[in-house]
Amino acid sequence: MSNKTGGPVAADLIADLAAASRILAERGVVDGFGHVSLRHPAAPGRYLMARSLAPASVTPDDIVEYDLESNAINANGRASFLERFIHGEIYKVRPDIQSIVHSHSSSVIPFGLVGVPLQAMFHTAAFIAAGVPVFDIREKFGATDLLVGNREKGAALASVMDGKDIVLMRAHGSVACGPTLQTAVFRAVYTEVNARIQHWTMALAGGAAMAALDAEEGLLADAINQTAGIRAWELWRSTVRAQVHW
Amino acid sequence: MSNKTGGPVAADLIADLAAASRILAERGVVDGFGHVSLRHPAAPGRYLMARSLAPASVTPDDIVEYDLESNAINANGRASFLERFIHGEIYKVRPDIQSIVHSHSSSVIPFGLVGVPLQAMFHTAAFIAAGVPVFDIREKFGATDLLVGNREKGAALASVMDGKDIVLMRAHGSVACGPTLQTAVFRAVYTEVNARIQHWTMALAGGAAMAALDAEEGLLADAINQTAGIRAWELWRSTVRAQVHW
Amino acid sequence: MSNKTGGPVAADLIADLAAASRILAERGVVDGFGHVSLRHPAAPGRYLMARSLAPASVTPDDIVEYDLESNAINANGRASFLERFIHGEIYKVRPDIQSIVHSHSSSVIPFGLVGVPLQAMFHTAAFIAAGVPVFDIREKFGATDLLVGNREKGAALASVMDGKDIVLMRAHGSVACGPTLQTAVFRAVYTEVNARIQHWTMALAGGAAMAALDAEEGLLADAINQTAGIRAWELWRSTVRAQVHW
Amino acid sequence: MSNKTGGPVAADLIADLAAASRILAERGVVDGFGHVSLRHPAAPGRYLMARSLAPASVTPDDIVEYDLESNAINANGRASFLERFIHGEIYKVRPDIQSIVHSHSSSVIPFGLVGVPLQAMFHTAAFIAAGVPVFDIREKFGATDLLVGNREKGAALASVMDGKDIVLMRAHGSVACGPTLQTAVFRAVYTEVNARIQHWTMALAGGAAMAALDAEEGLLADAINQTAGIRAWELWRSTVRAQVHW
Repeated sequence: MSNKTGGPVAADLIADLAAASRILAERGVVDGFGHVSLRHPAAPGRYLMARSLAPASVTPDDIVEYDLESNAINANGRASFLERFIHGEIYKVRPDIQSIVHSHSSSVIPFGLVGVPLQAMFHTAAFIAAGVPVFDIREKFGATDLLVGNREKGAALASVMDGKDIVLMRAHGSVACGPTLQTAVFRAVYTEVNARIQHWTMALAGGAAMAALDAEEGLLADAINQTAGIRAWELWRSTVRAQVHW
Repeated sequence: MSNKTGGPVAADLIADLAAASRILAERGVVDGFGHVSLRHPAAPGRYLMARSLAPASVTPDDIVEYDLESNAINANGRASFLERFIHGEIYKVRPDIQSIVHSHSSSVIPFGLVGVPLQAMFHTAAFIAAGVPVFDIREKFGATDLLVGNREKGAALASVMDGKDIVLMRAHGSVACGPTLQTAVFRAVYTEVNARIQHWTMALAGGAAMAALDAEEGLLADAINQTAGIRAWELWRSTVRAQVHW
Repeated sequence: MSNKTGGPVAADLIADLAAASRILAERGVVDGFGHVSLRHPAAPGRYLMARSLAPASVTPDDIVEYDLESNAINANGRASFLERFIHGEIYKVRPDIQSIVHSHSSSVIPFGLVGVPLQAMFHTAAFIAAGVPVFDIREKFGATDLLVGNREKGAALASVMDGKDIVLMRAHGSVACGPTLQTAVFRAVYTEVNARIQHWTMALAGGAAMAALDAEEGLLADAINQTAGIRAWELWRSTVRAQVHW
Repeated sequence: MSNKTGGPVAADLIADLAAASRILAERGVVDGFGHVSLRHPAAPGRYLMARSLAPASVTPDDIVEYDLESNAINANGRASFLERFIHGEIYKVRPDIQSIVHSHSSSVIPFGLVGVPLQAMFHTAAFIAAGVPVFDIREKFGATDLLVGNREKGAALASVMDGKDIVLMRAHGSVACGPTLQTAVFRAVYTEVNARIQHWTMALAGGAAMAALDAEEGLLADAINQTAGIRAWELWRSTVRAQVHW
């Protein structure tokens, strides 16, 4: 694999990517851990992601370029996230995905630990209605530290996604993806909210059926979210801008 | 329908309406989405609502006037909320209602997904004791994006209200109404709090009866809330004023 | 009853009482509603409480003196809380109580709606181990607005307390009392925390027994709380002081 | 035992220990109560801990040195925490432990009240997978105020730990330990998060099995946390530094 860059990236796109880290921290989706990436806009074989750093602290200067083997192209001594392979391996097999969020948001984790599927409880989390696969690293790799710390593990994770834009990771967290940075962030935020709603809905239901979105409703509502969701992004983005002036 | 305005509206009323958006955001009732409207004080065939914008960002300059068909009277290029028809169609059939809040507040959503009625758990949410209808858009419109995006859907929603001041929307959110802006905001805030309390009460009850407010207690307590509730409004309103100076 | 004051009260005591309102708001025990009172330090037949105002807004100038019939001694046009009779009637029959908090804190309300007793889950809420009576206003007064809006209702509430320092009010809220302002505030704060812990403990227990504090442990731990609890008060009081400079 | 100091301690270590108190308060692990200690870096028979003070208020000047009998070496009139014996007695029997956090964090308490073991729900709380003993002070001491207020009680607590780095205290709280200050704080923070996740996971599971970390996964993931966890510490530490400038 070449160590050539995919080319320069517009400063405002880099700033948006750095802001996305802070947005996810502010919304409680990530804490000291978690990361968000963006496929290089001009070079589909490259992606952009912060160096290993708490999401709330990321600035544009922390953004590093990677190839799809998750080798840093321009690290200049900056450390990389151990789990960057989640991003590289998904981008490799899913050309439709342009942005990826990995988090440990706490309401979502239970759905990776028991055989109860996460479902779409409201239109804002519509993309969930397509189905939510669960990746158990133990199946292929036995006892591990649970981290997706190499290409083989990243590829195994990507392989269970089966065309979906979300995957839960047993005893670890989840991944939400999208065709734009804004949509990936939006989906990560509302996956956590949706999980919280589903916990209460299942408690109320006591085993009875829930009128969740069906697959067709999910497709129709998700299409709207991809445009109307920009309203939420603009609010979140402006909050970051007011704090850091970029 | 005429494109004539219902006439000028006092600046402090417009400011209160803009502040209501921020209050609802601050109280966690709305996030990037949701809206609050007020019937025009001098023209019952008109209502006032923010342009399409995150509630936490609304200013008096964002308030637009609509007729009851939900056509903007004075948009001047400002975009309208897709779901403004919720407001127009309710105002059309319910002359007693002067203000409407639409939200996706997360504790309320479960009650629209299972056959368990929302009940009034404490006097502050007394208006719930009159009963809480659920609107399932699928019944009349089949698979949709779940949004009340035209007059027909708005009318269908309004038709299930049956004289109540609240309606839940399956897999979407809810609507709370009142005879004043202050009461509609108050009810939206305490509907969310009440839902949270009911979740825990039902978990405790384990199937046994709950001593919720009955209909008569609901009427008596709601009458008090409509005057005593101004104490909460004044607190919330002063907090917004301290931030934005209007 | 005389309209004579119980005499001047030290300014720092008045400031502490005003600060207590803000502390309770800051800790989520009260919101736009709720109140805290203090028996007059020199005149047991008088008590001090804010005028009708959201707790987060109370200043020393808002403190009014009442006799035990809950008549204002020095209102000077300031409006009184509708439910001041809770305070007056408890002070009348419980000379050991010097301070009272009334709130609608949301985790506590469920225990007034179903036949499940609130129990002491940890030493900080030890005073609960003595037992927690529930007042249902409907038993004596039929359908009401739920408010303790006159002396007769206040007396009925006080009569179910049976020597305890806490009473739940069905479909309304609760009252926590103590021999000092600091202890009453402390108990109100930790009653809410304790209720939250008990909800989760009961969910875990699934009907099995919980190793709550027994009555003897409750007495021993509560004695410590009345002195060690001052550490929490000092933290909370200093936070208010930093905001308002009194 | 001698009243000789273990020697001077680097100012930045003292500052880190003071900051740890504020970090734990900021993360909701401690409130007005709770404490964190560090074994003296040069003298294993001494430990450092704040004087009796709310954790959010601790500064470097509040750090006191203790011997392992929990006698203050340099109190100079500063009051000590009643429960310092938790720290002294654990350091006495566990030379591998260099730092200890005691808290009443509310999601953890239920697991000390019912016979349901706390389990590791995600890799960040991996150290829990080794097992979580519960200390019931009543077994050896009968009815008490629940506090570990002398050496004998501290020794009894330490004796149930059985090589683990965590112990729950019935009707009271918990203790989390580690080989460094950073790891002890990290574990205390994620024990609370893990407990919250387990509550929801058990509610979902409805009695079925949960795919928690097993002991081997726990060991592997905990080893990573002890280095990767520094990323969280750096975020938290920088937040404190921005507030207090030390």
